[in-house]
Amino acid sequence: MEGEPTLRLRIFNLNCWAIRYLSKRRQQRVRLIGDTLCQEGFDLVLLQEVWSEQDYSELKAKLAGSYPFSHYFRSGVIGSGLCVFSRFPILDTLLYQYSLNGYPYMLQHGDWFCGKSVGLVVMKISGIIFNVYVTHLHAEYCRDKDAYLPHRLVQAWELAQFIRHTSKAADVVLLGGDLNMHPEDVGIRLLRGWTGLQDAFAEAMRFEGCKNGCTLVPDNCFTDKSELLPFPLGIRIDYILYKAISSFTVKCEELKTTTGRAPGTDIPFSDHEAVMATLHIQRQGQPAGATLGTPDPALADVVAEARAEVGAGLRAARQQRYSSGRMAVLALLLLLLQAAAALATLAGLGAEQPFPKLSFCLLAFLALGVLILATGLHLFHTMEVKMLHGTEDQMWMMLRALQERPSEG
Amino acid sequence: MEGEPTLRLRIFNLNCWAIRYLSKRRQQRVRLIGDTLCQEGFDLVLLQEVWSEQDYSELKAKLAGSYPFSHYFRSGVIGSGLCVFSRFPILDTLLYQYSLNGYPYMLQHGDWFCGKSVGLVVMKISGIIFNVYVTHLHAEYCRDKDAYLPHRLVQAWELAQFIRHTSKAADVVLLGGDLNMHPEDVGIRLLRGWTGLQDAFAEAMRFEGCKNGCTLVPDNCFTDKSELLPFPLGIRIDYILYKAISSFTVKCEELKTTTGRAPGTDIPFSDHEAVMATLHIQRQGQPAGATLGTPDPALADVVAEARAEVGAGLRAARQQRYSSGRMAVLALLLLLLQAAAALATLAGLGAEQPFPKLSFCLLAFLALGVLILATGLHLFHTMEVKMLHGTEDQMWMMLRALQERPSEG
Repeated sequence: MEGEPTLRLRIFNLNCWAIRYLSKRRQQRVRLIGDTLCQEGFDLVLLQEVWSEQDYSELKAKLAGSYPFSHYFRSGVIGSGLCVFSRFPILDTLLYQYSLNGYPYMLQHGDWFCGKSVGLVVMKISGIIFNVYVTHLHAEYCRDKDAYLPHRLVQAWELAQFIRHTSKAADVVLLGGDLNMHPEDVGIRLLRGWTGLQDAFAEAMRFEGCKNGCTLVPDNCFTDKSELLPFPLGIRIDYILYKAISSFTVKCEELKTTTGRAPGTDIPFSDHEAVMATLHIQRQGQPAGATLGTPDPALADVVAEARAEVGAGLRAARQQRYSSGRMAVLALLLLLLQAAAALATLAGLGAEQPFPKLSFCLLAFLALGVLILATGLHLFHTMEVKMLHGTEDQMWMMLRALQERPSEG
Repeated sequence: MEGEPTLRLRIFNLNCWAIRYLSKRRQQRVRLIGDTLCQEGFDLVLLQEVWSEQDYSELKAKLAGSYPFSHYFRSGVIGSGLCVFSRFPILDTLLYQYSLNGYPYMLQHGDWFCGKSVGLVVMKISGIIFNVYVTHLHAEYCRDKDAYLPHRLVQAWELAQFIRHTSKAADVVLLGGDLNMHPEDVGIRLLRGWTGLQDAFAEAMRFEGCKNGCTLVPDNCFTDKSELLPFPLGIRIDYILYKAISSFTVKCEELKTTTGRAPGTDIPFSDHEAVMATLHIQRQGQPAGATLGTPDPALADVVAEARAEVGAGLRAARQQRYSSGRMAVLALLLLLLQAAAALATLAGLGAEQPFPKLSFCLLAFLALGVLILATGLHLFHTMEVKMLHGTEDQMWMMLRALQERPSEG
């Protein structure tokens, strides 16, 4: 290979778990992450869960020497938590916020408030155009009965569509992030199948780190041990994926993960392990047409499987829309009834007031509260139905296209 | 030109004003639109404000013969209102929902509930790849004191960015829609300058229709005459824009608008006029590099102007975030005070109850209501600040890039 023009790119990906007031030893860990990044001198750093802009600013100040270019993606109430640091200039950026991302009333899960998104930065390194995507999908709180699966599948679908539509002029596509999906999950298969992205862990010539490339491991002192009970080795949910689009090849020379603690210290960077890849990018003699237009023949099955899950989510969302609508109507009826009773009393029609004043007022306020909440819920679930339905439709369109021209893609 | 392979494409664009229960003579007009589209046989139909999926289904059934391919974009509570009918197969679609779109509490304006978006459909006609965008931006309710200008500018910016990032493999880009901006407005100049799109009205070799290409005219019986008082000829806010990306040229042979009523009838299609363009698309000998990478030198000024407006919106949003946060804190304090008073009374500390029970309860409910509403508002304005700030940042990045490499683009 020597003598041929080859680009070697070192990438660092980490879900930083930097939630203000909630994450343990946050400031110490953010300092540690900054110090390590300074020492190690990666080319590209993709971070998730940097929720506080102050943490980002501190990292930016510290990394200004070794990573002069950076971008923080803002969205949602708290922020997207996504940021990128780079040794090379960032030419352009774009943020796509997923249309579904959990429920605002699930306060204990909080995903809705984060405005989960995918961020794109475009870079040109040694004349090669890179589209680098960083993302964080909705968390999985209960694997057996995962209420958020339809939302995560919509996100995986939108991620794949966003990558496909925005990467057409790129030579190399990189995706890093916490996808909150195991490697064999339908969402990952959909994403990989539909975009053609390759998994750095599966392709790596050398691997060093947690067994099976896991990124949420019991050895990490910050992980919730009870969640990992069914997976004694841990789970792999953080990824670096890549593909070469035009006349380039990408090879993963080495993949590393941290192993429950940051190198040379006794605390971890985060509750997730960092994923570090060394990629070799090489120009080919002729365009690698083969990597482009031939989708996996099993892709139709994957899309059908994903579509069935989205369909189940759609039925549940319709049910919730109906229930909340019915509740709103009942509350409205109660309010109208009370208004009629009050008017009747005022007009002197009733002999005496049927209820004590206080209870009457309390009931009215309760009905009003229920009306407002139920209406809000109804609107929210209406949006949810629209988005699930839209995704189901798009998947169906894709299935039809796959069946009509299986080889063309 | 004869003998050379030329594609002639006829495009129809209309804001249909089809709001269930609210728009006058909606069903009659939707039938009329369907009949006209059947007779006229356009190649591509871009519609906005088709809010009811039932109207879309009726149109789809009626147009199945002449426009066998169609797509309806779902988003928001009510829907995006956007749909496309086509004589040619739709290969792929993508929806991008704008991150800002008015305020949910401005019920009388209702834009927030529509989930304003841009829809993309990809088509291949005679071997030419078309990226067709259809969109509808936030309405302008008061031109002198336009509270929604920052939001509309964020939308124009996101629209431009979305088109730039997704159209890199396209040969021809078409955009149709109700942009709710006059031709000289900063948002239009930003959109056109940053994407290189050309205005079919300005480029048309032949024009027929309302003076100055206006699409909201006093002659239309459904328009609000008082709104058009400062503009006796009407205003132009509906557009067909286009550009050729690679080795193609696009020319607008003819542009037409309706003139206050549908052809051959006495009622209009909508409160907007339809815009109909005939485009000539021709393959060139060599790539038209010149149309790609040379942005207008005045673009930096336009971006600076837009950024100043977004900055003004950001300051207003920060002020509203602060006010709503303060209101929430005050309501919380009142609730805590009441709780303390109630506990003191229960514990027998106070000699007697300081307030009548009913007023005390009413006050508590009021405080709770204010707390919930103010918290909701605070969250909303926090998101607004994030998005305005993010857009301001991106515009700044672009300005820097324009200044650093003015000729490269």
